[in-house]
Amino acid sequence: MQITEQLARFLATHCAEDVPERVRHEAKRSLVNFFATALGGCRNEAMEILVAALADCFGPPHATVIGRNERTDALTATFLNSVSSNVLDFDDTHLRTVIHPTAPVAPGLFALAERRPITGAALLHAFALGVEVECRIGNALSPGHYRRGWHITATCGVLGAAAAAGTLLRLDAGRMAWALGAAATQSSGLVENLGTMSKSVGVGNSARNGLASALYAERGLSGPDRPLEGPRGLAAVMGEGEDLASVVDGLGDSWELMQNAYKPYPNGVVLHPVVDACLELRPQVGDVARIERIWVKGHPLLRERADRPNVTTGVEAQVSLQHSVAVAFLFGAAGVKEYSDACVNDPAVLALRAKVTAEDDASIPPDAAVVGLRTTSGETRSAHVAHARGSLARPLSDRELEEKFRDLAAYGAPSVDAGRLIEAVWAIDQTNSAGDVMKLALPPT
Amino acid sequence: MQITEQLARFLATHCAEDVPERVRHEAKRSLVNFFATALGGCRNEAMEILVAALADCFGPPHATVIGRNERTDALTATFLNSVSSNVLDFDDTHLRTVIHPTAPVAPGLFALAERRPITGAALLHAFALGVEVECRIGNALSPGHYRRGWHITATCGVLGAAAAAGTLLRLDAGRMAWALGAAATQSSGLVENLGTMSKSVGVGNSARNGLASALYAERGLSGPDRPLEGPRGLAAVMGEGEDLASVVDGLGDSWELMQNAYKPYPNGVVLHPVVDACLELRPQVGDVARIERIWVKGHPLLRERADRPNVTTGVEAQVSLQHSVAVAFLFGAAGVKEYSDACVNDPAVLALRAKVTAEDDASIPPDAAVVGLRTTSGETRSAHVAHARGSLARPLSDRELEEKFRDLAAYGAPSVDAGRLIEAVWAIDQTNSAGDVMKLALPPT
Repeated sequence: MQITEQLARFLATHCAEDVPERVRHEAKRSLVNFFATALGGCRNEAMEILVAALADCFGPPHATVIGRNERTDALTATFLNSVSSNVLDFDDTHLRTVIHPTAPVAPGLFALAERRPITGAALLHAFALGVEVECRIGNALSPGHYRRGWHITATCGVLGAAAAAGTLLRLDAGRMAWALGAAATQSSGLVENLGTMSKSVGVGNSARNGLASALYAERGLSGPDRPLEGPRGLAAVMGEGEDLASVVDGLGDSWELMQNAYKPYPNGVVLHPVVDACLELRPQVGDVARIERIWVKGHPLLRERADRPNVTTGVEAQVSLQHSVAVAFLFGAAGVKEYSDACVNDPAVLALRAKVTAEDDASIPPDAAVVGLRTTSGETRSAHVAHARGSLARPLSDRELEEKFRDLAAYGAPSVDAGRLIEAVWAIDQTNSAGDVMKLALPPT
Repeated sequence: MQITEQLARFLATHCAEDVPERVRHEAKRSLVNFFATALGGCRNEAMEILVAALADCFGPPHATVIGRNERTDALTATFLNSVSSNVLDFDDTHLRTVIHPTAPVAPGLFALAERRPITGAALLHAFALGVEVECRIGNALSPGHYRRGWHITATCGVLGAAAAAGTLLRLDAGRMAWALGAAATQSSGLVENLGTMSKSVGVGNSARNGLASALYAERGLSGPDRPLEGPRGLAAVMGEGEDLASVVDGLGDSWELMQNAYKPYPNGVVLHPVVDACLELRPQVGDVARIERIWVKGHPLLRERADRPNVTTGVEAQVSLQHSVAVAFLFGAAGVKEYSDACVNDPAVLALRAKVTAEDDASIPPDAAVVGLRTTSGETRSAHVAHARGSLARPLSDRELEEKFRDLAAYGAPSVDAGRLIEAVWAIDQTNSAGDVMKLALPPT
């Protein structure tokens, strides 16, 4: 059997009960993080622009735009919810591929669930399979695909989104292959666009077009037999000569969701242990005016990516070690507020970041760091973080994810009842109507 | 100046009056052919499926779906009109790149013109510029890009569509570059999908997403400075090492529209001179029952692409030399009806195609052919076609394009008044309201 055919048969015949409990729980954790980041991002400038530009084309009010009062058709809501969940760079990360798995896959499932009778258990199952497909294809194409310049979240995300929606629509294996084919021919997204608002177009499209692919296949839109492995298919055209056999090896035995990680801070992953160490030191210092200087030691990647003393915007500050250290000490936090343009230009932040220096130490692994400081009275303190919070070695606990959720909801959609929505996501496998969860993401009018 | 910047400045500052009259006329010919093929394709099976799948997401009835009674939002109508104009493989061809230029570029312009006050002259200007952009980028990436497996109509079309819509929206150079950036990150389409219905998804998306890119940029969605030539931009990621300098060489002096060709028959280009020769011989034969055997001589490409004696579907028959010869003799035509599944399985067609053989002659150029026959009474006849109808050396006349239009309208949308619509397209530069042309493409209810 060919790769596409095997994958399509697996998706069409897999049973929800065969997803292990720990994978189901990880799927819920991914969804908690998804709603958190979507609520946090729902008023972001890129979102406001996209909503305004698309408003004239909104379809019927079938689906919720998370955290906002607009309601629109399933495809448009899917696009917008994918954008808001990814726009802050605070969503989940499959570390091996650097795919952000949930933003492409989850939105279409919730939009479908607002339109058709779908249980929470079915949604969770489809979500797990969708993440599996996008990450397995991503694994197979890595590292050449991303290195060439493909924005892998978008390019592989559309296939995961199609697989997930196709599962929820109960496509048979033939139509599932057609859905994967329609998704493959819509796979796009360039790394060149990262750092600009148009990054969101690629990510939002992956979700929208994946759902569309499944809806087309459901109606009988034919596709090629081998969209993934054919001579002019996905791997041949968008890969660097890789074999796709690993995409179907051990399907259903291992689960890529277990490799998913959640950021504690909306900044570059290399900065996470640095912020952890600063937050550990902060209570020992008291008044930050006492700090004379701060030094950071880390893997050479840290300085290469993040030694940026003179940043002026929030987006730049997300990869600035000096800014991140300063806000951690000043505010005891490194959240979305601390990466706003206003905070980046706060005189107190500027003053403190001028005291920060960094040096390389190749013996320190990338998810570790040491931060030291000296006070004006000559005392020194240091903290060593062996594994950053949010790394696979030290994942955020469920409670920490809930805290992140509350912070982000308060930031982007303060009128949404965060507690009820959190509770509904943890209990999603108990509901007969998965669409009801979205009602809790709609602010009261 | 960089490539994207030069291109964006050219688009933002070019005047409609600087499009030469012959280019404007060629633009109208492309639009006549566009409406012809969209009317012919508007009831195609792929169209019916896509309309049914998208109906639940239709936005407000701002825009016409050519030849049909649905009205929908601008983006959805753009998608559908691009599909219908391309689905029969009967649309225009920029021979150097094999791009079908109009299907991606024209639909968004007409959808905008139904929503905003736009003159026909402005639409024609934007159309010429859009075709220029897609074909110049296509030229620069050829032949490596298509050879790798990229469906070049879709991948380059989205950039042409963005450039055209951006011109109509009067984007300044900065926003035009953003529109090109949003388009670049949406560039997709695999050759693997050709021959299946999902080909239409790639082509339709190129039109829809190009328009969306311009609408996003109009509202201020930022993009990268160098989406085309940057280190992780379009050429680096989707090209094979080409230099993009030619994209801006002599912009405004030469016009790619002058290289656009229109098919007289909805079959493979290599078959065009063969059909021409058959139609020339036919009156000399009278009753086809007199034919004992038919031989075809052509460039080796002809047999390589089209020596398919045993086809069973219309799609296969489009690249069957035996079928094409049989219908030309039997019906004196090789139009959409002659490539239906029914016609392919007609016993008279099967009987005649069994008498057809082909041989290679490397001395015959690809747009030429010789067809000979022998009657049961021993007479022989032959016809030599030096240049196929529809080739650049022997383009369809305006009258022949009108005939093609009437045939296709009668096939796909018989209740549309073809004569009035043809007249409106030829006079499009005289109207203050380009959107009014679309009213004539809507069947009377």
